[in-house]
Amino acid sequence: MTTKVGIIGYGNLGRGVEGAIAQNDDMELVAVFTRRDPKTVTIAGDAAIHHVDDAKQFIGKIDVMILCGGSATDLPEQVPHFAQWFNTIDSFDTHAKIPEFFATVDAVNTASNTVSIISVGWDPGLFSLNRALGEAVLPQGDTYTFWGDGLSQGHSDAVRRIDGVAKAVQYTLPVPAAVERVRNGEAPTLSTREKHTRVCYVVAKEGANTEKITEEIVTMPNYFADYDTTVHFISAEEFAKDHTGMPHGGFVIRSGQSQAGHKQIVEFNLKLESNPYFTSSVLVAYARAAHRLAQKGDFGAKSVLDIPVSAISPKSGEALRKELL
Amino acid sequence: MTTKVGIIGYGNLGRGVEGAIAQNDDMELVAVFTRRDPKTVTIAGDAAIHHVDDAKQFIGKIDVMILCGGSATDLPEQVPHFAQWFNTIDSFDTHAKIPEFFATVDAVNTASNTVSIISVGWDPGLFSLNRALGEAVLPQGDTYTFWGDGLSQGHSDAVRRIDGVAKAVQYTLPVPAAVERVRNGEAPTLSTREKHTRVCYVVAKEGANTEKITEEIVTMPNYFADYDTTVHFISAEEFAKDHTGMPHGGFVIRSGQSQAGHKQIVEFNLKLESNPYFTSSVLVAYARAAHRLAQKGDFGAKSVLDIPVSAISPKSGEALRKELL
Repeated sequence: MTTKVGIIGYGNLGRGVEGAIAQNDDMELVAVFTRRDPKTVTIAGDAAIHHVDDAKQFIGKIDVMILCGGSATDLPEQVPHFAQWFNTIDSFDTHAKIPEFFATVDAVNTASNTVSIISVGWDPGLFSLNRALGEAVLPQGDTYTFWGDGLSQGHSDAVRRIDGVAKAVQYTLPVPAAVERVRNGEAPTLSTREKHTRVCYVVAKEGANTEKITEEIVTMPNYFADYDTTVHFISAEEFAKDHTGMPHGGFVIRSGQSQAGHKQIVEFNLKLESNPYFTSSVLVAYARAAHRLAQKGDFGAKSVLDIPVSAISPKSGEALRKELL
Repeated sequence: MTTKVGIIGYGNLGRGVEGAIAQNDDMELVAVFTRRDPKTVTIAGDAAIHHVDDAKQFIGKIDVMILCGGSATDLPEQVPHFAQWFNTIDSFDTHAKIPEFFATVDAVNTASNTVSIISVGWDPGLFSLNRALGEAVLPQGDTYTFWGDGLSQGHSDAVRRIDGVAKAVQYTLPVPAAVERVRNGEAPTLSTREKHTRVCYVVAKEGANTEKITEEIVTMPNYFADYDTTVHFISAEEFAKDHTGMPHGGFVIRSGQSQAGHKQIVEFNLKLESNPYFTSSVLVAYARAAHRLAQKGDFGAKSVLDIPVSAISPKSGEALRKELL
């Protein structure tokens, strides 16, 4: 069975989805939809490019729409809209608003006989899977999530908004000693400051007061005040050479005890050279599951927690059991 | 919903299942079934103890039977037998025979309206989940499974059968340099010898020829000949002090590339102080899923690959999305 996919929004994530589809023989990219003038958009492959307002014409021609917009404003509006007509996949990642988002989308799915798998990616996504798995298997224990080494888009943006900053990136780093304690089963109580540090690389504008910029960064509430933050000022050349990638990753560790107090440590970790392209790869695998669920008439909103691994694999149940079980 | 469980076979695994049930508020141990004279069996808690031939009397009183026998002879016979009357969970781990075992059990399930989740545990089990996940998300790449540091029961038994050996344990150790290369995304081709080493701790009988024992171990076909094996002779006292636990663990690493050749590394690893008790914890979590599937009328044989994480969690969908997604 081939899954025919549409992409809504062609930024890093959309470009990644296009690339990931090309890695899967049973997936086909039908069209990319954009809010820009389609004539101004160039994509890597030879799929059609349409204005997002024309998407409705593709009812019946696209099995799953992968929505590649942002969580702040795009997805809360776009997912319920397109779920009227299409099965959808999104990477909605505003944790606090997930229950409300799920309910809104589920109501549309139920009325429209469509499937939406929400909040797909790695966190939320594969990390969520492992948090739930760890808790279910080891009900007595503690779950730790560490992020990094990785570029944080939100924090980089916050630094870039400071007066005198020309360019900036912010990396989140797990504190190695804290990770080690968790891996050893010590089950420590860790403050925000003890779990992660933050490092900024900043290109200052000519004549800018770097001391003032540093002070503004390290005291910024919500973003940096609760962390130990280091600020490095570098040249535009060094920035271009070393800080244009989007690496990320992290760990989910369940530190549990089975009966008789035996320590049992379950860890899932990611080391990603490209955060958006990995997220894209996850979105594409779950598009396969959305298509299959719709084929079975199992409509409604779902999360990765509701999807068995067999549903995201191109292999048959027989092949999976023979080769991978 | 409470899941009423029966245990068939009360060895390490059965004892672990009893302990794991006690960690889960929504699970209840109804009875332990044994092939021994029930009067000679003592269990940790206060569940009933019956002869295995009396199990049939518990139809309707037990939601899921967890079969805790061995893969060589017990499970191939017991799972199809008890699946006539009960939903079942087993840890069948003879990889090569899984397809045949699945088909046999599935036929019984289908005729009897029962659910069996087969080959539950960590390998097969959680490791299988991660092998399938890694492949689905990163179709271009290589999957590596390393085992250890851990006690191998089969290899320990093989050493104990050698003339002159009083006691013996065998540990499998992943080669750190090989793990490091895989984690760094080098995607090396590794021979059996390059992936794992084996270490034996042996208590020799009085007057035994230790050189001859060593020679017999390191040249033993299938078990040791393909590995670098180290043999240590120790005293019965040291053996009793340091080598009676059953630690194990290992890694599943997917070393993949998303488009544009970005390296993406996905790793799942376990560090277990008690291999059988961890396996037991996994069995109990999946018993919850078997009960739920049966309640929905979704009968037949399944593996962990067919079960979403939400089905093994005691939490509702709402709670999972709010707290863990």
